[in-house]
Order: sequence, then structure tokens, then C-alpha cells
Amino acid sequence: MSVTAAPGFVAAGGAVGIKAGGAPDLAVVATDDGRPVAAAGVFTANLAPAAPVEVSRAHLLATGGHAAAVVLSSGNANAATGEPGRRAALALCRAVAAGVGAQVTEVLVCQTGLIGIPFPIEVVTPAVGPVVARRAGGEAAGAAAAEAIMTTDTVAKTAAARGPVAGGGPGFTVGGMAKGAAMLAPNMATMLAVLTTDAGIDPAGLRAVLAEAVGPTFNSMTVDGCTSTNDTVLVLANGRAGPVDPADLSGALRQVCASLAEQMAADAEGATKVAHVTVAGARTDAEAHQAARKVADSLLVKCSLNGADPYWGRVVSELGTAGVAMDPGRVSVAYGGVVVCRSGVASPHDEAAVAAHMAGRSVEIACDLGVGDGAAVVLTTDLGHGYIDENRTTS
Amino acid sequence: MSVTAAPGFVAAGGAVGIKAGGAPDLAVVATDDGRPVAAAGVFTANLAPAAPVEVSRAHLLATGGHAAAVVLSSGNANAATGEPGRRAALALCRAVAAGVGAQVTEVLVCQTGLIGIPFPIEVVTPAVGPVVARRAGGEAAGAAAAEAIMTTDTVAKTAAARGPVAGGGPGFTVGGMAKGAAMLAPNMATMLAVLTTDAGIDPAGLRAVLAEAVGPTFNSMTVDGCTSTNDTVLVLANGRAGPVDPADLSGALRQVCASLAEQMAADAEGATKVAHVTVAGARTDAEAHQAARKVADSLLVKCSLNGADPYWGRVVSELGTAGVAMDPGRVSVAYGGVVVCRSGVASPHDEAAVAAHMAGRSVEIACDLGVGDGAAVVLTTDLGHGYIDENRTTS
Repeated sequence: MSVTAAPGFVAAGGAVGIKAGGAPDLAVVATDDGRPVAAAGVFTANLAPAAPVEVSRAHLLATGGHAAAVVLSSGNANAATGEPGRRAALALCRAVAAGVGAQVTEVLVCQTGLIGIPFPIEVVTPAVGPVVARRAGGEAAGAAAAEAIMTTDTVAKTAAARGPVAGGGPGFTVGGMAKGAAMLAPNMATMLAVLTTDAGIDPAGLRAVLAEAVGPTFNSMTVDGCTSTNDTVLVLANGRAGPVDPADLSGALRQVCASLAEQMAADAEGATKVAHVTVAGARTDAEAHQAARKVADSLLVKCSLNGADPYWGRVVSELGTAGVAMDPGRVSVAYGGVVVCRSGVASPHDEAAVAAHMAGRSVEIACDLGVGDGAAVVLTTDLGHGYIDENRTTS
Repeated sequence: MSVTAAPGFVAAGGAVGIKAGGAPDLAVVATDDGRPVAAAGVFTANLAPAAPVEVSRAHLLATGGHAAAVVLSSGNANAATGEPGRRAALALCRAVAAGVGAQVTEVLVCQTGLIGIPFPIEVVTPAVGPVVARRAGGEAAGAAAAEAIMTTDTVAKTAAARGPVAGGGPGFTVGGMAKGAAMLAPNMATMLAVLTTDAGIDPAGLRAVLAEAVGPTFNSMTVDGCTSTNDTVLVLANGRAGPVDPADLSGALRQVCASLAEQMAADAEGATKVAHVTVAGARTDAEAHQAARKVADSLLVKCSLNGADPYWGRVVSELGTAGVAMDPGRVSVAYGGVVVCRSGVASPHDEAAVAAHMAGRSVEIACDLGVGDGAAVVLTTDLGHGYIDENRTTS
């Protein structure tokens, strides 16, 4: 199930000439009647945001949190492209608005690809209409949209979840799609995700539940520690299922975001392993997150993962430089539930069990800082030759 | 010229059984008469410091900044080894103190190698005396000491510089040695450096000039963004050349530290290129340093360096997430003096000149944030298969 899982949403994917060789490079997600619904977004914190981020932010402000469509393109990030870039992003919105019968400010835009290359809007514009015209509900249309936003992704990423509505009945649906093979992926940058739901909620409530869902999912994963100029998560809610308890929507959104994040990590460039780094015993949850991220971003820890080496000394060293409170005499580290370091020193353990765990594709690293009750989990990958090969050159 | 360049200092290197196969793994630097002289140190900021860091800090405090000798061992970091580790580091100091005729608190200790492995002090202790007995002045002894502290280093690192003394005459000398193939190197951790000088200065003055020298040199380089549990820079000053102007000593120390830092970067694991990342136009020097370090630590930028690819979009993206003020409409990036991005967008340039620069072993990346006068330089390396191969496993 994809971005078309919830009733009332349609999608399409096709080729508009950005990528060489006619590969799919444009996706559209829209309401089935072209009318705006509640919408919210979470955008990159990069101070040099791409043109589509600036345009989408402006449109959400202008409409007070409403949108009728999202257009996504892949192959060129339209970042560091200045005023011509902003005009190009706006022209994309205009072309889609015309196709779905909406106002230009009711269209949001996401782009991913190379940074610093002028966007070929004159080639693209004439090809947008035919893609928009093909929009439809159902599995196939959602799959086509998810495929059209891939860059170095090797598989399309989609997810869906359900939750109850306040008035009883069949409940609401959340559907979503995403792309991303690194936080700021290789040649082709960025993490993008679009979610749709038939849950009923106002724009302010939608913003709040989206932020809640993004924190422990997309914002708790790291492939290379780089934050793209284009990162964007959008959600549209048409209310057809009726009003919902925000907590139920938050839960369903989080479920979809978590699935998409796991799919991204599993498909990260050159990665052979996915690791969950848990830090407990921190002074606060925020400090636990900071420490888990330091371990998850460590080149040395990621190299050890690549070699299936349970070298916990590197984990302790990273915890010691994470900038958070920790007690080196009380710190512990476990791999796959087997404690290898206790009270800050080596702990006798079942080495065969640890070796078997490290050899698997999914690795669990659990740390305890010994100073409080704060806890957090960050998702990461190993660092292998493949990542370097993918990112050495843009050609 | 090495750590024995300044009159009044002797050194030795030898094997004491830490490394397999009888490779040199213990070095001693001492005053030629066993008497303490002014001493200062800069230590890792890691909250889980190794035993030798704790012992050296305590000894400098106990003596009010004096030392007669430094003992350095390689092959085992004696980190995350708890109370037995502290006893082992102290036992090393005691053995050297006996050999040179000093108090135990007058001996400082540095160790480098694997983290979390109990230090084999019972094997090592009996072998320390013979190494200490071989201590001598001159080039060969200094070279032997520099060789004995190598881990994954492929070459020994030594440097020397001279400066004037207040009373005229031949002036003073600073000599030094260092090891390190990553900030927290591979299997074998740590950056260590020992400097000696015959300049005359009190301990407080020596601490101040050492801090000045370390900031723009050792603290402005990054190979993998990891801060070791063991990083240590020590300096001993015996005053035989007479009193000096602190500014002159600071300059000479900085010259030696800069040379040693450049040698470390050039010898970094798997590195094929050394890059100087300059950030100007920042709000402050500190913000410039933070931004330069973000670029220098970026996996994507380091991959681009490996591929000799002038992909400036990644540099701009990293500047945008460095957490410092910048104006995306005024940012510029140049490779080897050729501007490739001006006012935040692609700038027409001599592509052949940039390609030729990127193909070389030394790359200059100069950025301007367009918001102030702050500037800084950080030294880094590319990221290649060699780094991963070196760090996948400890075996």
C-alpha cells in the first residue's frame, strides 16, 4: 500500500526529461477532486535550503496549511540555483495546478538530485501535463509515483497504517511513500516523503502530529550525518473518514514513518548492515539521542559494523565525546543483548553468540551511560566500499 | 631533528613485549640529569579518558607543572581498563622513575593502541629498565623513540624549530615527535606528541604557549572526527638557553606542531589526499572553525576528494548545516584558488585548471560565508577504501 492507500487521493509517475534515458523522474500526488485539504510539512534545517523547500514553505504559509497536490521530481535537486531555481520550482507548481484545477499556492513541491545544476524547466514544463493527466487511485498509480522519485534507491519505499476514528466505523488510513539512500544521499541528494490520510484534523493539529511522528523516525536515522538541502516530509489529510483523536493519528503516522525510515536504512548506499543504537541511562532523552547519534555517525563504529567486529572500545570512546553526561565507571555496552562491557571495562561473555549476532544483517547496540533515565534509539548503517564507490564522483 | 633536538634532553626506544613479534613499543624522553623541568600538557576532552591521561594529569597537578621524563607505549591504549589500568600506568612511571633517578610523580605517561584490553604490565615492567638505560642525546636516539610510538603510522614523525632568546646568543630550540594515523586512529588509537625545548619559561607560561600552539595545529585537523580516549600533547622546557619571550616560544612550538600535524594528515590511513579547508567571511573565528570542521568531517566531501570531483554543492550543503551564520546568497567556494560557486550559484570557471588541482595530492578548498570577518583553516584527508580496510576489524 502506498501514498494512494487513503480514500480520496490519486497519484501518477512518469518521465519528463530530467534524468537521462527517459527514466521516470516526476511524481504527482493530489486530492481526487483538486480541492485543497489540510496539509503540513517538516523541512530541512539546512541554512542553504533548495528552491523547492523555500517554495513549499511559502505556499503552506500562504494557504494557512492547505494543499491540493504535491509534485516531486528526481535527477536534479534544484539547490544552489538562486532566483532562476525558485522560478523553476514555481513553474512546476503552476503546471500541476493547471492540471488538477487548483491554485498555484495549493501545490507543494519536492525535488532531489544533484546540487548546483540549473534546473531544465523549459524541457520539463511541457511534459508535466500528460503525467498529471494520468493520475489515478489504487496500488499501481501509487507504485508509479514511488518509483518516479527514486535516485540511487534500489527499491521503491511505501507503507500504510490504519487507526480508529472518533465516531467508530471502519477508521482512517495513512499511506506514504519515500525516497532516500542516505540522509544527504550520494550524487542524488535527499530524503523525501509524502504521506496522505483520510483522517479529519485541522492544519495546526496536523503539524503537531507530523512533528511527533518525524522525531523518533526520520530524525532518528543517519546514514552519513549529512543533512540535505532538500529534505522534506509532507502530509495531506482530507478528513473523509471523520474526526480522529490526534494521538491515534500520531501513532499511525509514526508507524508509517518508521517503516519508511527502516526501508531507507536497509537500502542505504553500500550498506550491508542496519544497526539500532540504543542509549539508556542518560540524564535526559535529548542527551540520550545526542549520544546515540554520535555513536551512529562514528566512522570507526561504522567500519567495525562493516567488519562484524564487536569492538566496544570505540563505542565507549564515542560516548565519551558526545558532549553529554556519562560515568565512565558505570557505562555498559551490549551487542544483541549480550553485555560485552560492564562498569566501563571488558566483561566476560559468550563470544560465539556475539559473533553470530554481528554476522547478521541487523545489529543491536545497547549502551547505558549510568547517570539517569533518558533513553533514545538511532538507526544507522555500516560503512563499506560501496558508499565510497557511489559517492566518489558525480559521473 | 627530533625530540632530542634541544640540548639537555635524551631519549630511547625499544621493545618491551606489548606488540607481537618484538616490534619497538616503548619510548622514553627524559632530562639528561634526571632533574625535573617545567612541563605542561594538553589532553583529550573525552569523558572516558584512558588511564595514562588520568595519571599524567594527576602528576602535573602534584608537581605544579614539572617533569623529568615521559614514557610512551604503543600497542595497547590502556583505556577502559578501570583501576587495574591506572595501577599499570603508575607502574610504568615507577619503572622509568627508578631508571632516571626521579620521583614517580615527575614521570608522565602516554599510551596508544587497542581500547578495552587489560594492559600486560607484568610482562612489560621487567623490560623497561634496559630501554631506559639506553637513553641518549642525538639524532639516532630521537629517531628510535619516534619509531617506538608508531602504530598504523607508516613513517615516524619528527620536527624541530628555533627561536631567539631574550639575552641574544644562539637562541633556543624546540624538538618534537608525534604519532597518529587518525585522530582516533584505527585499531591502534590516538594522537600523541612530545615536545622538548631549552627555552626558559615557568610552568604557567608554558601551559599558555602550548595551548596557543595546539589550537590552530593539532586541534585544527581531522581525519575521521573521532576524539581518542588517549590524545595527549606534552612539552618539557629546561631553560638552558635562557629566558625567552613567550611569543617567540609560542611561534616555534606552533611551527613544530604544524609540521607534525601535516605529517599525520599525510600519513592518515587510506588517505590519498590532504586538504586544507579554509572558511572566511564568518561571523567569528570560532564560527569559521566550526564550519570548516563540518566540511572537513563530511563523508560526502571526503568521498568527492577521493574521486577528485569538485562537487561544490556538497560543500555548500555542509556549510548550511554547520550551525553557524551564513548567507546562502553570498556564499562562495573555490578549489585551488579557482572560484566555482559565487553568490550561492554555479560560477563559470576554468574546468581544466580545477581538474588539474583536484588530481594533485594536496587540495585547497576555500569558502566564504559572506557575513563577517571570521576565518579559520582545518586540515583533513579524503576517505578511501584503505580507511575502511584498516578499520573493519581489529585482527
